[in-house]
Amino acid sequence: MNEFDLIRRHLTGLGAGRDDVLLDVGDDCALLRVPPDRELAVSIDTLVSGVHFHADTDPEGLGHKALAVGLSDLAAAGAEPAWATLALTLPASDESWLAAFVRGFGALAMSEDVRLVGGDLTRGPLTVTVQVHGLVPADHALTRAGARPGDLICVSGAIGDAGLALRHIARGEHLDDYLRRRLERPTPRVALGEVLRGVATSAIDLSDGLAADLGHICEASGVGARVELDRLPLADQVAGEVAATGDWGLPVCFGDDYELCFTLAPEHARELPVLAAAAGCPLTRIGEIDRGDGLRFVCGDASHWHPDRAGYDHFASG
Amino acid sequence: MNEFDLIRRHLTGLGAGRDDVLLDVGDDCALLRVPPDRELAVSIDTLVSGVHFHADTDPEGLGHKALAVGLSDLAAAGAEPAWATLALTLPASDESWLAAFVRGFGALAMSEDVRLVGGDLTRGPLTVTVQVHGLVPADHALTRAGARPGDLICVSGAIGDAGLALRHIARGEHLDDYLRRRLERPTPRVALGEVLRGVATSAIDLSDGLAADLGHICEASGVGARVELDRLPLADQVAGEVAATGDWGLPVCFGDDYELCFTLAPEHARELPVLAAAAGCPLTRIGEIDRGDGLRFVCGDASHWHPDRAGYDHFASG
Repeated sequence: MNEFDLIRRHLTGLGAGRDDVLLDVGDDCALLRVPPDRELAVSIDTLVSGVHFHADTDPEGLGHKALAVGLSDLAAAGAEPAWATLALTLPASDESWLAAFVRGFGALAMSEDVRLVGGDLTRGPLTVTVQVHGLVPADHALTRAGARPGDLICVSGAIGDAGLALRHIARGEHLDDYLRRRLERPTPRVALGEVLRGVATSAIDLSDGLAADLGHICEASGVGARVELDRLPLADQVAGEVAATGDWGLPVCFGDDYELCFTLAPEHARELPVLAAAAGCPLTRIGEIDRGDGLRFVCGDASHWHPDRAGYDHFASG
Repeated sequence: MNEFDLIRRHLTGLGAGRDDVLLDVGDDCALLRVPPDRELAVSIDTLVSGVHFHADTDPEGLGHKALAVGLSDLAAAGAEPAWATLALTLPASDESWLAAFVRGFGALAMSEDVRLVGGDLTRGPLTVTVQVHGLVPADHALTRAGARPGDLICVSGAIGDAGLALRHIARGEHLDDYLRRRLERPTPRVALGEVLRGVATSAIDLSDGLAADLGHICEASGVGARVELDRLPLADQVAGEVAATGDWGLPVCFGDDYELCFTLAPEHARELPVLAAAAGCPLTRIGEIDRGDGLRFVCGDASHWHPDRAGYDHFASG
């Protein structure tokens, strides 16, 4: 298909400095070199029009996000991004849409030194699948397992922004630049993932929301967790929404923020500001791993807040 | 999504003997080990309902084919299959459909020692994307470039079968078991690809049809090709259709056979039967690489046949 030539034209030169790509787009397979002291980390994700994004979403933002979602998974593993493949299904030929998509994908790829090494362009309902490939020093990948009772629970950046943006959209309200950027152009915390290798005891990216994703850490590690809601890092708009509604669901149950949640042995507590400086993003301690079963969300007044399964309703108990 | 648990349940144990998978489905990333003397070969392909297959296609066959298409690309590179990832978009929850799909995917994965290491299951129009990962000794991968004037052009198996099957379906005619199997359960020529490493000068798999795919070899190698139509390996049904219509388009322009087309230095001509025995499939010499520009298709009476761009019309010249 001629359109893949367009993709190649726009993306040729990105990651051209990588000497670990022996053959890329244009043969039956890409050929890649993994250094002997590295493990290969891979993750594949699909975004479907009408499910994960609106059909009229800005294609440049979609190109960014389709890659960012995968890079966020690499960040959670502490892997350094290397290569990507792209399987793009488009309803019709639309060069300007494609050029914008590639611009968004390419800008993020360039900033993270990721090379597009293969792809497939097909006709059909708009669907974007990206597989990312990263490299991580042998035996040093971060996983969901490894959190121990007494470990601190930390998150990067702020949470609940993407959820608030979606809520504004659902209400037909204006999105300010900050919330739009947070929803459409999430920043994968790649540098943080690399900084946390050998330091964090577990990590995950916040794609499904704090409750679900921290729940995954607890399950994989065989531990419980206690989160202090007053400590959650919230943008002013999110804090305002929580104050107005009394509902912690926004920062706790909404996903799509692509921040990292990780656990840290208590002896590393004092290093948090150093890690934040090295990673170039705020890091906040929000709770503690314990021997309990599952998650508990505690308010400042020691009352508890429970996200229900739907994620939006709640009740408080003393 | 609970359905991915179903996929995991069915596929757990497949490739369980692989000690190069450090972490698979269930964390943010899979972690994989590539031996220091191997290169990593990857290929990603999407099958879209209504475009690449009928919506009511037998899901077991679809599971087989979605993996086979990728393994065929690995075969063309001479790579040994190792791992796969699966991004599956389904319109609705349908456990029996999914179980059948996984059965087809799993049976082929088992026979080729492929482990499913990651995936994403999403809601939306039926679309199947599979990325395959293979390992190939450093500097020994087969590519489309490397064919030289004087090289023999060879193909495996028989060609035109999938095209005839599709033609029967379009006419509402019965498909016999042979043609149905050739269309729905193509055999990726993995063993052949490995046998051809260090022997073939170029290789490609026949997914788009002989004319298009041999054309890719010529373009990548900077050579021309002369194909003797009388030498094409055809099943009886395909030979009958060609004889009845006088149209070589079926074996020349239809794809989907997933045989390999490769070139061989003339000094290896006598080894063809040995290579065929080692690979476990017929190999047929069909023509010769030359210094010409593009492809020429020659009949026994020295007349020429030209597939046009659409691939079905033709004319003969003396």
